[in-house]
Amino acid sequence: MVESWSFLDTAESNFKPLVVIELAKGTKEETIEWFTKRIVDKKANGGAQLLIKPLVTENGVENIYLVGASHLRLLLGAEAVGLVKECSDNSMRTFTYSSRKTFKHYADDNHDFLTMAECQYIIKHELENLRAKDEKMIPGYPQAKLYPGKSIVRRLLTSGILVQIFPLHDREELKKLSHSWYGRVKIGYQPLDDIRCYFGETIALYFGFLEYFTFALIPMAVIGIPYYVFAWEDYDKYVMFATFNLLWSTVILEVWKRMCAILTYRWGTLLMKRQFEEPRPGFHGVLGINPVTGREEPMYSSIKRQLRIYLVSLPFVCLCLYFSLYVMMIYFDLEQWALDYHKENESNFSSLMLYVPSIIYAVVIEIMNLIYRYAAEFLTSWENHRLESSYQNHLILKVLVFNFLNCFASLFYIAFVMFDMKLLRQSLATLLITSQILNQFAESLLPYWLQKRYNRRMRKRMCSAKTDMDLSLAEQINMEKEMGTYLGTFDDYLELFLQFGYVSLFSCVYPLAAVFAVLNNITEIYSDALKMCRVYKRPFAEPTANIGVWQLAFETMSVISVVTNCILIGMSPEVDALFPDSKMDLVLTVALVEHLLLAIKFIMAFVIPDKPRDIQMKLAKLEFESLEALKQQVRAFQMQLHFLLIHH
Amino acid sequence: MVESWSFLDTAESNFKPLVVIELAKGTKEETIEWFTKRIVDKKANGGAQLLIKPLVTENGVENIYLVGASHLRLLLGAEAVGLVKECSDNSMRTFTYSSRKTFKHYADDNHDFLTMAECQYIIKHELENLRAKDEKMIPGYPQAKLYPGKSIVRRLLTSGILVQIFPLHDREELKKLSHSWYGRVKIGYQPLDDIRCYFGETIALYFGFLEYFTFALIPMAVIGIPYYVFAWEDYDKYVMFATFNLLWSTVILEVWKRMCAILTYRWGTLLMKRQFEEPRPGFHGVLGINPVTGREEPMYSSIKRQLRIYLVSLPFVCLCLYFSLYVMMIYFDLEQWALDYHKENESNFSSLMLYVPSIIYAVVIEIMNLIYRYAAEFLTSWENHRLESSYQNHLILKVLVFNFLNCFASLFYIAFVMFDMKLLRQSLATLLITSQILNQFAESLLPYWLQKRYNRRMRKRMCSAKTDMDLSLAEQINMEKEMGTYLGTFDDYLELFLQFGYVSLFSCVYPLAAVFAVLNNITEIYSDALKMCRVYKRPFAEPTANIGVWQLAFETMSVISVVTNCILIGMSPEVDALFPDSKMDLVLTVALVEHLLLAIKFIMAFVIPDKPRDIQMKLAKLEFESLEALKQQVRAFQMQLHFLLIHH
Repeated sequence: MVESWSFLDTAESNFKPLVVIELAKGTKEETIEWFTKRIVDKKANGGAQLLIKPLVTENGVENIYLVGASHLRLLLGAEAVGLVKECSDNSMRTFTYSSRKTFKHYADDNHDFLTMAECQYIIKHELENLRAKDEKMIPGYPQAKLYPGKSIVRRLLTSGILVQIFPLHDREELKKLSHSWYGRVKIGYQPLDDIRCYFGETIALYFGFLEYFTFALIPMAVIGIPYYVFAWEDYDKYVMFATFNLLWSTVILEVWKRMCAILTYRWGTLLMKRQFEEPRPGFHGVLGINPVTGREEPMYSSIKRQLRIYLVSLPFVCLCLYFSLYVMMIYFDLEQWALDYHKENESNFSSLMLYVPSIIYAVVIEIMNLIYRYAAEFLTSWENHRLESSYQNHLILKVLVFNFLNCFASLFYIAFVMFDMKLLRQSLATLLITSQILNQFAESLLPYWLQKRYNRRMRKRMCSAKTDMDLSLAEQINMEKEMGTYLGTFDDYLELFLQFGYVSLFSCVYPLAAVFAVLNNITEIYSDALKMCRVYKRPFAEPTANIGVWQLAFETMSVISVVTNCILIGMSPEVDALFPDSKMDLVLTVALVEHLLLAIKFIMAFVIPDKPRDIQMKLAKLEFESLEALKQQVRAFQMQLHFLLIHH
Repeated sequence: MVESWSFLDTAESNFKPLVVIELAKGTKEETIEWFTKRIVDKKANGGAQLLIKPLVTENGVENIYLVGASHLRLLLGAEAVGLVKECSDNSMRTFTYSSRKTFKHYADDNHDFLTMAECQYIIKHELENLRAKDEKMIPGYPQAKLYPGKSIVRRLLTSGILVQIFPLHDREELKKLSHSWYGRVKIGYQPLDDIRCYFGETIALYFGFLEYFTFALIPMAVIGIPYYVFAWEDYDKYVMFATFNLLWSTVILEVWKRMCAILTYRWGTLLMKRQFEEPRPGFHGVLGINPVTGREEPMYSSIKRQLRIYLVSLPFVCLCLYFSLYVMMIYFDLEQWALDYHKENESNFSSLMLYVPSIIYAVVIEIMNLIYRYAAEFLTSWENHRLESSYQNHLILKVLVFNFLNCFASLFYIAFVMFDMKLLRQSLATLLITSQILNQFAESLLPYWLQKRYNRRMRKRMCSAKTDMDLSLAEQINMEKEMGTYLGTFDDYLELFLQFGYVSLFSCVYPLAAVFAVLNNITEIYSDALKMCRVYKRPFAEPTANIGVWQLAFETMSVISVVTNCILIGMSPEVDALFPDSKMDLVLTVALVEHLLLAIKFIMAFVIPDKPRDIQMKLAKLEFESLEALKQQVRAFQMQLHFLLIHH
């Protein structure tokens, strides 16, 4: 039996399942035996020293295994992944087993010292670090080659033997979390620390950013409302509004960095050392010696990759951009047609028809974004990047460029080629609102309904009317393994990024944009929370110290918005009227103001420190301590040496 | 006697003097005794465990002491300061005594393993780290208070008991270095590695930058010459020249980062860990507990400092800027007067007179810069910054803003208010050339002559006609201690920064600027080399990994130059003629081109990696190794623990 291998698992009752492994149906017995043996084997023998149990249901043993670990194993794993926890003196320190007593809430019998998400992260890390020793292939599957140092789990995944690995939900915790998160209608902050404990830092940071961003938009929305209501369209008020928006958008992005530092310091990820990056699962190539690690592993020539990027991906992206512009021109034709129709037969119906082209265009944009997204993923994966970070950067770049053009090209065209402010306002409003509704629907509500229907069917099949809480473990696992997989925060950030574009790029034309953004984000918080808790499988926690490349993306957008807003203000008839004699002076003034604003932006970004003073102090203190510790070591060593020299 | 304390100094002949300590005349005997005892005392007793000897001349014992150290002591010191040296396998590693055998050129009897500059840096570090234990004051000087952890040497310096500490020149090495550096007239690279061995990384990096910058200017100079000679003043050629200059200036700054990484990797400073920063010597305040270190030390409230900065320093700087503009207006009056004079009595003399106002103004600018420099130093020191880095940043900001305005305000005024391109060209040329001549003279040649005259007098007094090589140690020290102190690379970089401004800001008006800059820099290399080798005391080596804030300063200048050049091109009559119908189109085109250029600049800065690929690989390899070592440690520890648990 499987249990016999796991010597640490003395008491059957101790086993708490944390992670589920699903193997393909019909996986050979010898493969299962080898794999489970490797999982429970001692560290010294190259195993992961975890606990594993097959899931036994009424239908007998299915190819589903539950992975857990002893409390001690998890603590040692926490040290291996470099977890940072809070000490009794409220400072954050890297956890080590030997110093475990100095940590807050640590007790030998306190099994809640590590959160469940942390335990699952540790197990995932240990499983992924299970490396081939002298196996040449996966036993039973000669075509699935292995070589020393290759991650076994990754090879099993790519060869299809391993269907999926996912962490188990904790029904009770989830119920508590979902109640405090979205269960009751209330105005207040999200329980970010609880979210972080349950879903990990990356997801908690996304919700933190979403919440922060929504709050940050409120002043813009509040100021925007009277502009819309009283139709304040005179020059000086507009300039004030736009200037406020521009400086505000710089401030909020800078302040977010500080907020982010506060959050991630509290969560310990600000201090976590970066782990050495392994090649990503899909990476392939001929075996060679990695010059960095000295290990034998697949290598892929950088020149070949460059060729693929510049000769295939780049032209493809350009083609897509061209196609997007072509669709835009069709939209303008439609718009013209609707206008003509409205002029010919003026009626309520025809004035409604005016909005139809924009709505259709918004839907088409969303569909194009979706299709392009798949194409970009395929292409970037085909480019065969060695590291996940490099893959992500290329993917994000591709997607951002296309989405930016796809969403905003028509607005730029209307604003700076057609000079039609009325159409710009109408088009902006339709695009913004339609895309928000579509996104909310496609992203959360639709999957939720599908999931709900599926659950009902499942339960009917099981011929019982239990509530979620009463489900047996087997039933819970069977339900969860069919749930969709949450693919990361990419799409959620992208949505916010585009929204930020709608709000800031043409803010002085449509002050209500911020209001709609705020309303959308409030429901977004709820629907995203629902999505995380009820629609998707629980994702593995992923430690992170910041929102990464998105910070740069938002900052770039805010620079572009300075330029667009300055031009828009310069084009407004009110400003035009101020310079009756010379258009020249107008343009020069606008250019001067723009440069001034940009200069202020950069100086502000430079002057506002990225980390609050107290976090800086705490980091300095930690650095000082580690330097002191090193000095102590050197000093002790020197003394020892001198002692030896003198007595020699 | 002093020698009796230094137990490591077994053989008298072993003592090699490295650093000179000059105490004030009439320092009390007990102070000297205490200080020298602390220097030779064992590490375990809180001493520095160095060797010290009084300098004995014919006139008896003067208050000059020579400090040295045993070979072993220096090796241990190298580990303490975190020196990075080359290993036998050509990789760079942090030196530790236990792994000493793996380093290139290491042998127990090879006393050249550490360069003399490194030895002197180690001794300086050890002396500065000599800290008070339970002394309440410097013995013999009750007013010179001490508290535990306070650096003794810094207190001795601030209380005037210690006149100076400086490293000794190595006459033989210096002669070799100066011969290969500037001794013979040759076209070729500077011996940067030798300079680094003798003067340390900061100075070698300055000379590396100076050389690199000169080479980088050559293409600009070569392209500029035909523009001047053939008076190519038509539109398209000018635009090409300016565009080339702008992109080129971005490229050279980005490529410098890579060059710098190559140099500092080879020198080991790229990998050196930053040491914890102690308060700067001049910092004072009431005793308090430092929240970072937990030590008792002087504290100064940040609010008080802010008040001093914003209520005193800022208004003062503004006043200086106003004064500088006032002087500029006087210059324009003078210019007008000279023009009128030339018109009235046209002669050779009067046309020469046309250059006089610019020359006078250039001299005045240099004088104002000099005076302001002192004021800025005084003010920044009065602001009482705790850290040297914060002091330096505030000083550099003050000086840069003033110098920028002082040097370039008149040019901006001529270009964008007076629109007088002829005067701009003339003024630019005069300012550039005059300031270069003045700088070379004031900075190197004048001190060199003074030094030479002083040396001659000294030698006459000593009644001997020895050459430099034959001087006794006492004579050498007596000569060196009277030499000026090199105050760091600040002024040298500032000079280059202003030169870069003259070359790039208005490059399309005066293409010859780059030619003059190249010529100046070639002589600058020689005169700076002369200055370092012959005029100043040898400075302590200072490890550094980059040129710090100057990189940012140069990059900012290159952004400003994009704006100025675009405007200048837009203003040129040739471009004007291209848009005969609409000035509006002209301005819009110029603005568009400017934004495009700026965008290209930022994308280029983003795309070009800061470190060359092979350096990145080497760094990744080191990181991987240290992570592996850590993992090994954790693994060994885990196995040990499991072993214990099993056998328990």
